[in-house]
Amino acid sequence: MKLLVVGSVAFDAIETPFGKTDRILGGAASYIALAVSVLKVDAAVVSVVGGDFPQEYLDLFKNRGINTDGIEVKPEGKSFFWSGKYYDDLNSRDTLATEVNVLADFQPKVPDAYRDAEILLLGNLDPAVQLSVLDQMSTRPRLVILDTMNFWMDTAMDTLQQMIARTDVISINDEEARQLTGEYSLVNAAKKIHAMGPHFVIIKKGEHGALLFSEDKIFAVPALPIAEVYDPTGAGDTFAAGFAAHLASTGDLSFANMKTALIAASAMASFTVEKFGTERIAEISAEDLKARIAQFKELTGFESDFYL
Amino acid sequence: MKLLVVGSVAFDAIETPFGKTDRILGGAASYIALAVSVLKVDAAVVSVVGGDFPQEYLDLFKNRGINTDGIEVKPEGKSFFWSGKYYDDLNSRDTLATEVNVLADFQPKVPDAYRDAEILLLGNLDPAVQLSVLDQMSTRPRLVILDTMNFWMDTAMDTLQQMIARTDVISINDEEARQLTGEYSLVNAAKKIHAMGPHFVIIKKGEHGALLFSEDKIFAVPALPIAEVYDPTGAGDTFAAGFAAHLASTGDLSFANMKTALIAASAMASFTVEKFGTERIAEISAEDLKARIAQFKELTGFESDFYL
Repeated sequence: MKLLVVGSVAFDAIETPFGKTDRILGGAASYIALAVSVLKVDAAVVSVVGGDFPQEYLDLFKNRGINTDGIEVKPEGKSFFWSGKYYDDLNSRDTLATEVNVLADFQPKVPDAYRDAEILLLGNLDPAVQLSVLDQMSTRPRLVILDTMNFWMDTAMDTLQQMIARTDVISINDEEARQLTGEYSLVNAAKKIHAMGPHFVIIKKGEHGALLFSEDKIFAVPALPIAEVYDPTGAGDTFAAGFAAHLASTGDLSFANMKTALIAASAMASFTVEKFGTERIAEISAEDLKARIAQFKELTGFESDFYL
Repeated sequence: MKLLVVGSVAFDAIETPFGKTDRILGGAASYIALAVSVLKVDAAVVSVVGGDFPQEYLDLFKNRGINTDGIEVKPEGKSFFWSGKYYDDLNSRDTLATEVNVLADFQPKVPDAYRDAEILLLGNLDPAVQLSVLDQMSTRPRLVILDTMNFWMDTAMDTLQQMIARTDVISINDEEARQLTGEYSLVNAAKKIHAMGPHFVIIKKGEHGALLFSEDKIFAVPALPIAEVYDPTGAGDTFAAGFAAHLASTGDLSFANMKTALIAASAMASFTVEKFGTERIAEISAEDLKARIAQFKELTGFESDFYL
């Protein structure tokens, strides 16, 4: 299945207890593009960058088979820039700088060849932009996947609610699910989110993995236990990417296949945090992913003959 | 395999956002006894109670096939009493009262018939008592399982370290693992605990489930997602009980079987929190447990043909 992605393509500067980077490739759509290309998905990215954005990064996407026709270059503008510093536990961070730049008045343009994409992955971004991309589709995608965060709940809740109402799969973290619904219990939060529109609710729990809810069905995926997380940036983006890429590769949108997609999601995220920025996700192969899926089999599989 | 259990048999008074109890049956060994009897394990409890302890509770254990010869009754003494109040998130609590009473100078006496038990489950208790029980065994048990908590790290670390050195499987929560080792990463914490003695390290993460580490192998079990946790008291005890009971029932101490034992552990704990105190764990059958294990299969199982 064809996959259309919208999200930021940008610069990041990251500091963690393990080190510090200069301006490197960042942005939700960059992480997503690199992750979905591991599974050689037919995918296009819609985004915008400034004249300062290196051609080599765009070539990186193209060389990995990602369609970049939807990445607008504004020669007079500057690319989105984010800088952050993670605390020792790597679960919390301070934003040091956010320069919105060309993203401020981003008018997304979906390439004609991807207006009929079966899967639409709306990366974390202004929900107005996400809605605009959905509106440009020639046919309603078979699956609309929404990644968002608390920032949009704080600043654009009405628009976000419109977006959520038209979403099939929402991916948010546990604190965001609680903020969105006022429910502490994640089971109850998922129920309230179902009522807002999405039939499938993914609640991410960082090092504790994630839960996928579909009405009365639940699937739990752990995070791969890792001795040292070097940089959590992009983990949520590549998680959503792994999920979407598995579904696009297999062309099977059943709940049973979404379970495997969630394993692929957790596997992708587990690679991402092993090095700074996009470095690790850009170097792994389909074989690496396969080996890691096998690790998840060991990590969660158990014999139940004694009981069943 | 025969299972010997040591732990408190006591009274609790519990308050949660869902209600409040008078003095009810409590104590680690009470929860453990009721849980292991679900699998009809040949088990004995070593503990001490006062003259105020109702015969009906002792009969409850006996009627479920638990050997109570090791539960000393001190007619002049009063039973251990704990009272606590949980906060709204049920993850933290205030202790309102702790009356140690007959536990203060508890001299455990292992019944002769259980000195050769293959599995010894040392419920959360003073590590000096745990050591005394281990010392009374006629042959070293094939598996020594230790449940403990931060209280003993704060008050009896030297004795606890002696106990840990003689333990095969330790069961503690994530914060305790961090306190014990000074390592934030649970992978690194488990490595340090291996070096203290235990070949198997279970790290409990409350609503996020638990991890089992054995040198380079890891298994992850989720907690069953539950809409409303009524009362978390005893969850850790019945978790350890489910683990030990599965191993005793099957007589298989391999890592592969410990994975299933951890599922049984999480299943037992998931029942416990559904009602106040021991009420729920006392009413479930082997069939109920079997049905819940099947739920865990659905919760964690996935197809991997696409990758493997």
